[in-house]
Amino acid sequence: MSPNVPENNIDVLVIGAGPAGLMAALWFSELGINARVIDKRGSKIFNGQADGIHTRTLEIFDSFGMAKNILSQSSTFVEHCTWVPTEKGGIHRVKTMPAFAADDSRFQPQTIHQGRIESIFLDGIKARSNLKVERGVEPISIELDRGAIEDPDAYPITLTLRHLKRADVTSQVIRSHWKAPKREEQTGVNGHHDGPKINQLHEKFDEHERTEIVRAKYVLGCEGAHSWTRRQLGFQMEGDTTDSIWGVMDVNLITNWPDTRKFSSIQSEHGAMLIVPRENRLNRIYIQLADNETGKSASEKLNLTSADIFSTAQKIMSPYLFDYAYCDWWTVFRVGQRVADRYEQDQRIFLAGDAVHTHTPKAGQGMNVSMQDTFNLCWKIAGVLNSEYSRAILKTYEAERRAVALQLISIDAELTQALEGRPTQDELHQLYRARRQFLSGIVTYEPNILVARSRQSSLGRCPSCGGSSAVVAEPGVAKFITLGARFSSYEVVCQADARLWQTQDWLKSDGRWRVIVFGGDVASTGQLARANKLGMDLVRVLGKFEAHKMKSKFEIFFLHSSKREQVEITDFEGPFFPLDLNFGHDYERVFADTDNASSTSGNSHGFYGVDSTRGALLLTRPDQHVGWMGEYEELRNLERYLEGVFL
Amino acid sequence: MSPNVPENNIDVLVIGAGPAGLMAALWFSELGINARVIDKRGSKIFNGQADGIHTRTLEIFDSFGMAKNILSQSSTFVEHCTWVPTEKGGIHRVKTMPAFAADDSRFQPQTIHQGRIESIFLDGIKARSNLKVERGVEPISIELDRGAIEDPDAYPITLTLRHLKRADVTSQVIRSHWKAPKREEQTGVNGHHDGPKINQLHEKFDEHERTEIVRAKYVLGCEGAHSWTRRQLGFQMEGDTTDSIWGVMDVNLITNWPDTRKFSSIQSEHGAMLIVPRENRLNRIYIQLADNETGKSASEKLNLTSADIFSTAQKIMSPYLFDYAYCDWWTVFRVGQRVADRYEQDQRIFLAGDAVHTHTPKAGQGMNVSMQDTFNLCWKIAGVLNSEYSRAILKTYEAERRAVALQLISIDAELTQALEGRPTQDELHQLYRARRQFLSGIVTYEPNILVARSRQSSLGRCPSCGGSSAVVAEPGVAKFITLGARFSSYEVVCQADARLWQTQDWLKSDGRWRVIVFGGDVASTGQLARANKLGMDLVRVLGKFEAHKMKSKFEIFFLHSSKREQVEITDFEGPFFPLDLNFGHDYERVFADTDNASSTSGNSHGFYGVDSTRGALLLTRPDQHVGWMGEYEELRNLERYLEGVFL
Repeated sequence: MSPNVPENNIDVLVIGAGPAGLMAALWFSELGINARVIDKRGSKIFNGQADGIHTRTLEIFDSFGMAKNILSQSSTFVEHCTWVPTEKGGIHRVKTMPAFAADDSRFQPQTIHQGRIESIFLDGIKARSNLKVERGVEPISIELDRGAIEDPDAYPITLTLRHLKRADVTSQVIRSHWKAPKREEQTGVNGHHDGPKINQLHEKFDEHERTEIVRAKYVLGCEGAHSWTRRQLGFQMEGDTTDSIWGVMDVNLITNWPDTRKFSSIQSEHGAMLIVPRENRLNRIYIQLADNETGKSASEKLNLTSADIFSTAQKIMSPYLFDYAYCDWWTVFRVGQRVADRYEQDQRIFLAGDAVHTHTPKAGQGMNVSMQDTFNLCWKIAGVLNSEYSRAILKTYEAERRAVALQLISIDAELTQALEGRPTQDELHQLYRARRQFLSGIVTYEPNILVARSRQSSLGRCPSCGGSSAVVAEPGVAKFITLGARFSSYEVVCQADARLWQTQDWLKSDGRWRVIVFGGDVASTGQLARANKLGMDLVRVLGKFEAHKMKSKFEIFFLHSSKREQVEITDFEGPFFPLDLNFGHDYERVFADTDNASSTSGNSHGFYGVDSTRGALLLTRPDQHVGWMGEYEELRNLERYLEGVFL
Repeated sequence: MSPNVPENNIDVLVIGAGPAGLMAALWFSELGINARVIDKRGSKIFNGQADGIHTRTLEIFDSFGMAKNILSQSSTFVEHCTWVPTEKGGIHRVKTMPAFAADDSRFQPQTIHQGRIESIFLDGIKARSNLKVERGVEPISIELDRGAIEDPDAYPITLTLRHLKRADVTSQVIRSHWKAPKREEQTGVNGHHDGPKINQLHEKFDEHERTEIVRAKYVLGCEGAHSWTRRQLGFQMEGDTTDSIWGVMDVNLITNWPDTRKFSSIQSEHGAMLIVPRENRLNRIYIQLADNETGKSASEKLNLTSADIFSTAQKIMSPYLFDYAYCDWWTVFRVGQRVADRYEQDQRIFLAGDAVHTHTPKAGQGMNVSMQDTFNLCWKIAGVLNSEYSRAILKTYEAERRAVALQLISIDAELTQALEGRPTQDELHQLYRARRQFLSGIVTYEPNILVARSRQSSLGRCPSCGGSSAVVAEPGVAKFITLGARFSSYEVVCQADARLWQTQDWLKSDGRWRVIVFGGDVASTGQLARANKLGMDLVRVLGKFEAHKMKSKFEIFFLHSSKREQVEITDFEGPFFPLDLNFGHDYERVFADTDNASSTSGNSHGFYGVDSTRGALLLTRPDQHVGWMGEYEELRNLERYLEGVFL
């Protein structure tokens, strides 16, 4: 290397600052990791692109304290309408029903364009660290020293980065236009419109191109479908060879059709269309062009204009008035349904997001699954970098997330096939309902070093990651909690102050593991003593895995099934009512059921399927997924689980 | 005047940057008024002082989009406990019940110290304008040119301001201390502790004292109980001549007493005490020293130390362990129950907050009533300054708010007297329940130019402000809405997108008036036509009062009683479904009941006492108070109301 080329060591380099890369950056910022994020583009996304936010994604944002930032500007779709042809031509509404997924989470699905999600990420990162996205920077070479991959002090990956000079940096093309001239005399809509904002391109760029050598411990390739990192690694995208072609527009509709503010599926003799409500009175319309332009070749379809797409839309919506003045973004794109054969190289270089899975936009999954990839990965990398966890846990990323992508492709294919079969609305809704949990992002990871094996399953090593899954759990203690799935939320009340909490409020994304003690009937003296003894045992066991005194890696929450007034907060001991000699007791460890029983509160032990007398014990990972569960007396198995994970 | 003394014209000068002054500044920032805020002190409050936030105050913060800023850091008190002496000595709990006021608002009472409220105000002001509080500045003379008070272009008030030099500026004395040395090995509590933060004193100060002449259109004196402005005007405080003396401490308790996280009243043979939960595991304790130190003179009591106060507290709480390590703030103060004889001079100089009313802290009212004073006043001043409203409306401030202060003193006296009579807990709770609405801040203003007169009452001029109250309203159209009270909130659903709203969400504090149309049963064609015709009439009538094209002074909301699926959003016309030719229809004007009826939703017309067939028409002022109501056919009376207010 030339002596003039600067060289830098870095713990993690994230390539690509889309949703997957920014979720990685958020985790690394939260956990104090020395990371850099580079992106070839000169700016963040301003409009268009992905726009669906499913409920699990909102749970994840909420765990970072950021769901409110989405909800304050997104469009909620509460209801789903279906329209079909009438006998005399035209279309009519046949059904309005609650949007799918509403009952799997305390959140409802939202729409908001990718640019705003990126802004919310950037705000969250700024609140946590000095990490800044470096734009106009691209990698041009990458090398992995395979001899050093198990050395915790080595920087086994060497990259050359090119810092583009300003003139060479490309920004997102802002495909907005006015169909008719803008009426200046009109008052604007409430809230601001994103429109073209080139002046957001305020980052500093170099006047001259330069290169830099970076040595990294870990690299994440999050550059989207055309991933440079994937090509360097030689991984293959596997799956369908045929692509479907879609026309998409984000427009402010001017229409007398009544359902613009609902998620609507329209079938007509001119083809099918999806209409999705969006922020700022926008609507997104999706037309699968294969359905509507069958006489054309793929490349002819790809050359269709916004006028072509909208004219098809107008035919579908006839006889309703259907027009627009402002189009915020539009595109025609082709997409196949494919998953990469591998997600990582030697647990040092990882791929995530569109770089490893592509599929149709029908179920609005893309951005969600991509962010969930790095949400799964980065707390693991951070813990390894902080010398807390064994490197063995890094194998669980590919095992856990590639299985999700394969399942997504299979469901996408199933939906496509079903749609081609011209199903009845009832059939279609049955299908959506059956896949609802998965489409909401509620997935289950198979047993591995981070997901204990059910006592009922066979012994042995984890088939997917090769790690030890010799640790057994007893799923019978919480029948409605699934090992490997995220801990679902329920409304409970704080014993000491009577305030309402969601149990997911316990599970903040701050890198900590949570031990949830279902306390059973602590109004019985015997059970109270049993629980308080468990508390002391927990302090002893968890203490073995505490490396840092000042910030514990564990938090303990206690949820009992007795009436709140039958016990006092002062009945609880040790970790359930800890005393800080400076600032007094911690009153937010012990929780009870609300006084009023409903489907969402009042009977937590019943909701989770836990014995309301004896209780149970459960461990959630830093990503809210359940790693282990069992009886109080099975604490030794929890200890074995932690021995497998912690150094 | 010396030619070296700078002279400036300003629309409003606010003297004092406590909660009352900052609420004024928030309004003026929101409404684009050229205002300055000065404060003699060198810094905002950091700890101690007032700490109760009642539900109406939260509604007001919410109308500025700022309730979440309080709720994210305050302590909620959900439950109220009462403790009394046992026969064998010591104390025991006799009752736990919901904190009073819980059912008057969708919010619950909170506690948070005044310094944080001031910070939230400063953030809200910064988000709206460039207005900055000028610290270390005090007025030394004020003159009012009474010949110019009705001239809208005049600056009839002349003040001399002294800018103190740095050495002369006093900051708040931070009365925090450690009783025992801080234990460094302890981990801190979650969240940051406010403690001493002298470095927040970052404002720039002059090296040399200087003076400045300011000519103002309006002046607000918000400097607290020792108001300079009040003394210059020669107004008198009237009321009790005896003062009561209170000891107050904010401490992190170390105790085995279980109710620190609840609002608790303790009676014991050693005296009575209130314990209030606070942020960061703090508790505030209040002891009325008259009860406990009867042998001492007032000045002896005023010289009591924190050790004296806490030792009394320990006696009261015996046999519980009751101690602390950290005290965030403490004080001993004397207070009388008094109200100023006048609130304003010639509707040019106004007083607000502690400058015009003082009372005991028993019901936690002080900060709330003070902020509500300027919340009432400043949209009126802003509208007059913007040439929108007649100056006659300014007389309503004293009429409306002095009546509230008098009522507060009377209730305070009633509570004090009741407590001295050693009432049973049931008697005490009956009393609190009876005064609950008022203590929550839910007050009713008497008829005046801004509150129409009920058809049933006698004709004539408004007795309090002398303005016209010849405008009649028909309170019978909405039996559970009170003319002059704030419009209470109810859960409804947006017709077009099925999202849930609170009706108070309509009533943002942005200076606009709202016409709320109760639509009745619009599934009937006749009623739909009647409502749509009303819409057209409203456009005509309200149009007369619109001075600015770009920002309307009115917003219209439509709430009907039919099933949502019986009508389409496209059935509504004119202002109920307005079309913007650039951005499409406004879908957030028409609302319906939720599908599931409960006490808080599903039957809005029933909740508000409106005929569910015919509907009704209602006007809210920019402060959410109901100014007028009537039948659709009484629109002419609404027009008369507006003719009295608007220029």
